[in-house]
Amino acid sequence: MSDLNRAREFGFPVVGMVGAGQLARMTAQAAVALGVEFRVLAASLAESAAQVCPGTVIGDYKSAGDLLGFGIGCDVVTFDHEHVPGAQLAVLSEVTAVRPGREALVYAQDKLAMRNRLSFLCESLCEQAAAPALTDVRVRCPRFRPVGTLADVLAFVADEHAISGRPEWPVVLKAVSGGYDGKGVWICDSKEAVSEVLSHGIGLLAEEFVPFDRELAVLAARSPKGQGAVYPVVQTVQQDGICREVIAPAPGLASEVAELAQWLGLRAAAELGVTGLLAIELFQCEKELVVNELAMRPHNSGHWTMDASVTSQFEQHLRAVLDLPLGATACTSGAAVMVNVLGGDDPDLYSRFIHVMAADPGVKVHMYGKQVKPGRKVGHVTVAGEGSDVERLRDRAWRAANFLSLGTEEPAT
Amino acid sequence: MSDLNRAREFGFPVVGMVGAGQLARMTAQAAVALGVEFRVLAASLAESAAQVCPGTVIGDYKSAGDLLGFGIGCDVVTFDHEHVPGAQLAVLSEVTAVRPGREALVYAQDKLAMRNRLSFLCESLCEQAAAPALTDVRVRCPRFRPVGTLADVLAFVADEHAISGRPEWPVVLKAVSGGYDGKGVWICDSKEAVSEVLSHGIGLLAEEFVPFDRELAVLAARSPKGQGAVYPVVQTVQQDGICREVIAPAPGLASEVAELAQWLGLRAAAELGVTGLLAIELFQCEKELVVNELAMRPHNSGHWTMDASVTSQFEQHLRAVLDLPLGATACTSGAAVMVNVLGGDDPDLYSRFIHVMAADPGVKVHMYGKQVKPGRKVGHVTVAGEGSDVERLRDRAWRAANFLSLGTEEPAT
Repeated sequence: MSDLNRAREFGFPVVGMVGAGQLARMTAQAAVALGVEFRVLAASLAESAAQVCPGTVIGDYKSAGDLLGFGIGCDVVTFDHEHVPGAQLAVLSEVTAVRPGREALVYAQDKLAMRNRLSFLCESLCEQAAAPALTDVRVRCPRFRPVGTLADVLAFVADEHAISGRPEWPVVLKAVSGGYDGKGVWICDSKEAVSEVLSHGIGLLAEEFVPFDRELAVLAARSPKGQGAVYPVVQTVQQDGICREVIAPAPGLASEVAELAQWLGLRAAAELGVTGLLAIELFQCEKELVVNELAMRPHNSGHWTMDASVTSQFEQHLRAVLDLPLGATACTSGAAVMVNVLGGDDPDLYSRFIHVMAADPGVKVHMYGKQVKPGRKVGHVTVAGEGSDVERLRDRAWRAANFLSLGTEEPAT
Repeated sequence: MSDLNRAREFGFPVVGMVGAGQLARMTAQAAVALGVEFRVLAASLAESAAQVCPGTVIGDYKSAGDLLGFGIGCDVVTFDHEHVPGAQLAVLSEVTAVRPGREALVYAQDKLAMRNRLSFLCESLCEQAAAPALTDVRVRCPRFRPVGTLADVLAFVADEHAISGRPEWPVVLKAVSGGYDGKGVWICDSKEAVSEVLSHGIGLLAEEFVPFDRELAVLAARSPKGQGAVYPVVQTVQQDGICREVIAPAPGLASEVAELAQWLGLRAAAELGVTGLLAIELFQCEKELVVNELAMRPHNSGHWTMDASVTSQFEQHLRAVLDLPLGATACTSGAAVMVNVLGGDDPDLYSRFIHVMAADPGVKVHMYGKQVKPGRKVGHVTVAGEGSDVERLRDRAWRAANFLSLGTEEPAT
């Protein structure tokens, strides 16, 4: 490894990232400019980031031994996912700086801990003088309760109906940590659906189903020194639990509401002791913002920053975990639209580059080096331009993404 | 190699670049987004691009065997320098697509061939109806003559004095190809200085010394299909033969003159059969543009495109050599200033990141992974912003670059 990269000889640090998916791949790109050495802990050399990172170490992120071997060579270790178990994080912390640390990561790993902590935080934020002064929109977490049996869930459903006045169904069930079959969230319409989820025997929360107007996300960064920075609030569109589209900044968002969301991002990062990025997904309702999920890493809702912000989220994450001063978060264009490229039936993505690039020389294509499988995120496209013309940007981005996926030009819906 | 990168399995091509300096390093960054596999032929794993490129092959660019071994694994081979000899290029062309090809590269390798061809091209361009219609500014090459003896040079000096009416000295001597001690251009003030250059026994041209107002550069791209694209014309500032600063677009440049330079870039790329990028350095004088040098690769004068153009020059070069449609060349901000970071006395660059990033969160830092040596290009910084405030952008960029170099804040001169 040492003769692959001389950066360390010259006083530049070594950053390790556990996980080698597309988030690590795009972080590797950012590391090139900073001149720091970047290594990934990958399951195989075929993974997305391993393909572009000479500093790839093969290992299992659940193995304390593999993590130790990886961590010993790094000045700081960070993550492209939240799945490293707490005990292993503790071991890793013995040999290197781990950012975000175990105490913060628990809130990205354990939804019960996150809900308890953030519910309290939201309440205290709303009670503070600053928050109500900003706006009459409040920020809160969904009502929730840990459940283990059908009776638990039915009791939650009845209570929720009584409080909200909304229909009893659907109810949301979430795995406290992990999930199964790659899923961790279920929207259940009936007792039978609840029973099916319960049958898997995993720890669950029941949550109110929030009838939102749209989804937003806020992305903040925090360094060990405590410096914070926050990006403009974006609108996200999810389909079947997958992020499909991000519009930055969120169109028509009242500045007071945007500031409230940004304030939440910065405060939550500080309160939870995050180092690196913190992404918070929000439901926007008429008079409130409701916290959905959070992540402590680069996030799909921030990919637009690569092409339309002074500092990309990947560079920002590196700066934060290295305790360097954070970069400017301003947009470099009036608006940007990112659309994920999902795999379609035809695996030959590259053959479709010609059409996409010829049709729109301004579209930015980002490929992840992944084998095409139907529905899998294999890349994304971003189109940036005038803020007054978001629908045109959406149309361009969707046409490019759909053509890459499907070989047909389908406009935004 | 094959298990390092699965892109090819998925139908993505393999691009090889001969040379592993900072131009290859930044091309590697661009290749990540396109999803193509990128390999470099490097002299050692310590080179700038080798540090960030898993597809590094160690070899000698002058060795036909090494080039063949490298080229066989690539769908297309391109270059981060012009030093591969013609015979070796011919061998390489037997096994893979070489872009730019040998017939074009000769004009980047042999200044006599370049001067002959471009002098003719400039004359014919100026005679065409389109050119004079654009502007009364003409474009030409410097007067030149191959020289072998002091008498040759003195005859050129006398003739040049008679034609131009300018002082006899200085005269410019240029190596026809290569040079010695890393130099290929000498500005000679006296017979003694000329004799010193002649004593090295290399092929030389004498050229008129052009008293220019400022230096410009134009960067064009051309694909094998013949598509062309050209970036806004920039102003460059050279010190001691090294590019120090680039301002994009060139401030106060009359649009007719900018169009003439862009037109020259596109026409020269087509006439010389370039595939990939063509950079032309120009002297701007009162009533004429004079062609100084050209290069067929990403160029220092185009580094600003990474942070302030829709398509970076590195992505553009890849798109061109892959015969993909070219990307948009528009600026994403009103203006951008790039300043090279030269090595100073203190090798510890990284320790100075904190000050630079804290002082200016909007500065973009690009490091090359090179050991600091006094005067060596070890990175660059770019600051983008409003076109109405170029002096402020210059000041910010110079302060950052000087601090990284020297540890002191010195403003732009």
